[in-house]
Order: sequence, then structure tokens, then C-alpha cells
Amino acid sequence: MKIAFLGPQASFTQLATSQIFPNEELLPQSNILDCFKAVQDDWVEKAVVPLENSIEGTVSMTLDYLYDFDGIFVETEVVMPISHQLMIHPDNTEIEKIYSHPQALAQCYHFLDKEYKDVIKQEFGSTAAAAKRVAENPEKKYAAIANSYAAKLYGLKIIHQNIQDIEQNHTKFIVISKKGERLNLSQNKITEKTSLIITLPEDHAGGLHQVLSVFAWRKMNLTKIESRTLKTGLGNYFFFINVANEWHPVLSNNALEELKSLGTEVKFLGHYNEYLLEI
Amino acid sequence: MKIAFLGPQASFTQLATSQIFPNEELLPQSNILDCFKAVQDDWVEKAVVPLENSIEGTVSMTLDYLYDFDGIFVETEVVMPISHQLMIHPDNTEIEKIYSHPQALAQCYHFLDKEYKDVIKQEFGSTAAAAKRVAENPEKKYAAIANSYAAKLYGLKIIHQNIQDIEQNHTKFIVISKKGERLNLSQNKITEKTSLIITLPEDHAGGLHQVLSVFAWRKMNLTKIESRTLKTGLGNYFFFINVANEWHPVLSNNALEELKSLGTEVKFLGHYNEYLLEI
Repeated sequence: MKIAFLGPQASFTQLATSQIFPNEELLPQSNILDCFKAVQDDWVEKAVVPLENSIEGTVSMTLDYLYDFDGIFVETEVVMPISHQLMIHPDNTEIEKIYSHPQALAQCYHFLDKEYKDVIKQEFGSTAAAAKRVAENPEKKYAAIANSYAAKLYGLKIIHQNIQDIEQNHTKFIVISKKGERLNLSQNKITEKTSLIITLPEDHAGGLHQVLSVFAWRKMNLTKIESRTLKTGLGNYFFFINVANEWHPVLSNNALEELKSLGTEVKFLGHYNEYLLEI
Repeated sequence: MKIAFLGPQASFTQLATSQIFPNEELLPQSNILDCFKAVQDDWVEKAVVPLENSIEGTVSMTLDYLYDFDGIFVETEVVMPISHQLMIHPDNTEIEKIYSHPQALAQCYHFLDKEYKDVIKQEFGSTAAAAKRVAENPEKKYAAIANSYAAKLYGLKIIHQNIQDIEQNHTKFIVISKKGERLNLSQNKITEKTSLIITLPEDHAGGLHQVLSVFAWRKMNLTKIESRTLKTGLGNYFFFINVANEWHPVLSNNALEELKSLGTEVKFLGHYNEYLLEI
């Protein structure tokens, strides 16, 4: 089976993808749009894209494409703790310059300030590319901040583990496809959820409140809500909503019917499991 | 006055910043965290950071830092249409390779597919860096997709204007400071708004609905809502909310009091104007 993912090689997205699909053919794409197109045009069966907190790619684009593309569904969501490793070429011991993505450097601010205050920090396009640069320049005193997969792929030696300032930082990815099967993975299941995209008829006061009432009196809990401006103009919005827990067919179908009767457009993206990946 | 902004030079953020503060000293920062730190530590008076739709920097970080940093307020929000220009070195006429940020290449997909189908597209860390690369290699048949400011700064010639696929695409920036003055700019004012960060006491069904009721019955319209996971754990959230239109002191203060009495934490980020920039 062919699986597209947001590249480059050794990105965090690949790290997640290789855990979800350890035995499939993984095809890196250069942007999130290409991942959606690959699914739509049947070049691949599924794709893995970042949904939240990613340092690789503008994830609001993921929400916009879920709105734009018809017939593409969510099969699972995975949560991956963000772990940054400081790595050098195995022939080296000294460090004069540390390469990484600006956001990764920011996430390791306190560690770098304490341990490598006077070392030059050099921003790079991605953490994976930073690791590659270190690997390709064994004679230079370079280090990179990247993930453990990048260290392995490029034969680098990790000299400080988990150097990010915030232990609980994580990033989220979703698996998308045309079929919208509910994926069952062997990883730890956190919860089940349902994703909907709701477009209000117009930008009127209390419209969103009315929509949320449909869920509230049914005690259906929302765990994510994000408004996105429609590209048709500045004043119109759609909402990406996650409803927590199990999907009761009667209750849920009634809720969807009620939403439609309020004049909203509802796009059902899937009811699926959320898993916690380990790295 | 010193103003920090999310760099590099000739980024879209600088393009916005130079329009908001045409006569001030502008200091590029390598990430959004450094922009917040610069304000907090009084190295600068204000900073300009992306809030939505940016191709430069993970803007969910902006929401997290607005939550994390105490005593930093929003002074204004500006909306900038995203306009991509195809540019070459003035000594050149042919194009063999087009450099740009992956997201910018994605946003010009239809144009590139129609006009430059067989030309190599090379991803680069930022649109500004792509323009710089073209400027530094006049002997090569390179082109870049970047903004008009980058073309000017690096002496490049724009050969196709506004090549993005979607006319209405735009990006949003905010000006932050410790003072939280309400900025008055000469640009076209779109609206007024108030930004709040609301933290629910726990993740209970209908909690958000209850919060929105406070605004709904007062006919205070919400124009943006975004939930963000707290870094203390996977199950806890805060909400970034924009309330539209004028800020009625009595109505609004009552609303804030009511929110607090529901057990929520409310952080007032500012009541400010939103402007439309032209490029």
C-alpha cells in the first residue's frame, strides 16, 4: 500500500508515519496540498499530514484542505510527544555551530542558554535537513537538533536526549483517505472522536452558540474547535469541531439533522480512534 | 522606537511591519518566542508576529505565547492579502529552476502547472531566502516566488504578478506590547474587536457552550474561536476568542464578571482596531 506523508525524509511526520505504517511504501511530499492531491488522484491510498503544533508546515492549511476537498475523510489521529535530540557526527567531539529549524531552537531555548550559550545557533529549513548537513560535513564542528529517527538515518551520535524545555509538548497528525475506514492501531488508544466541519449560513451573533447548543444538551463534549475564514471573503467562517467519546448512532444522527435544520452545512469527516505514539 | 518582527529580512511579516511602522527601527527575530521575549525584556517597545495563515512560522505558537506570557497585550491586528510574484535577475530572461517556500509553491500550483510545468521547483526555507538566492546567482537561470518587497530589496525583476491561485488569500498579524495601547493607523479600518483567552475549570461537557452563552444573549458576536491544548496535559484546553464590534463598558464588564463567576479564568488581551494593508 502506498502512503504519502509530508516530507522531507526524517521529518517528524515520517517518524509518525513509519510507526503507523511500518510495512508500507512511504512517499514523501513537499507540501500538505500534494498529500491531499495524492489521495484524491489515487496515487496513494492514504496520507499522513500534521494537524496541530507542527514545526513542519502550516497546519491551518490542513483544516482548509479538509474543507476544500470533497470525499476525503479522517481515519485516525495520532499524538506524538515532541522530543528534540542534540546530535553530532560520530568522528567529532566539539561543537561550534548548532543547526536546526527556528521553532526547534526556540523549543530548546533554556537548554541551549544553559549548556551552549556561546555556540552559534544557525536556523535551517527543517530539523531533518539540519541533521543531513551535519552528516555531510564530518570535518566541521557542527551539531544538529533533530529527532532520533534523523540521527539513525544519517548515522549521527545523540549526545543530549530530550532537550526540549517543555516535557509535555506534542504534535498531532491525521491519516486521511477516500475510504474513511476507522483504523485500528496497536499503539495506546487515548480516546475516540468525531470530526465535523460546520459552515454557518451567515455571520450572525449567537450562530455558533446555537450550533453548540445542539451538542451541549445531548452532553456531547467538544474537545477541539477552530474557526477558519472562508476564502470567499473576510467575514465568513467555517468551524472545525471534534466531538469526544463514542458515537451514539441515534443521538448523533439527530444532532446532525438538527444542525442542518438550523441552516448550517455539515461535513462529516469521520469517527475514529486517537492513539499516543511513543518515540 | 524599536520594533521586533519575525524575520528574515523581506519576509511577509517585515512587509506588514514596514507598513505599520514606516519610520521606526525594525529588528528581525529568528522565531516568534524571541519576539515575545524582546517585548518582555524591554529590548523593544512592540513586536509584530503572525496570527493566522502565515507561511512563516507556526502561528499556533503565537496563541500559546499570548497565554504563557503575562502582561503582554494586543495593540492592533492587520490583514494583508497574500500576493506572490515571480521574479528573476534583471540580466536573465530564461528560467530553469524556481525557488520558493513549499507553501508558496503550493499556493501558486495552478499558475506553475500552466506556465512552467516542466521547470524544476525547488523548495527553500523562506520566500525571502529564495529571492536572495536568485540575486546572488545572476549567471544561473533561477527564478523565485516571493513578495514585491523582496524583489525591491534584492534588485529582482517581477515578470508575473499575483500568481497565487486564490485571489482572496490573506495572512493576519498582530502588534504586541506591554502597554497595550490601542493603535490608530492610517490604513483602512475593517472593524474593532476584543481578544480574550478563557480557560475552563475542567474538561466538562457543555462548558464551552456555557461560556458562549455569556456572549450570545448579549448579542456579542464571536469572529474567531480556537481551542488550544494546555501543555500541562492532553485533556485540558484554553480558548482564544475574538468578540466583534464595539466594546460597551457596562455590558462587557458584566460579561467578564459572569465568565469569572462560572469558574473560568479570563485573560483580557486588548480591545483594538483591525486594518487592511495594501500591497
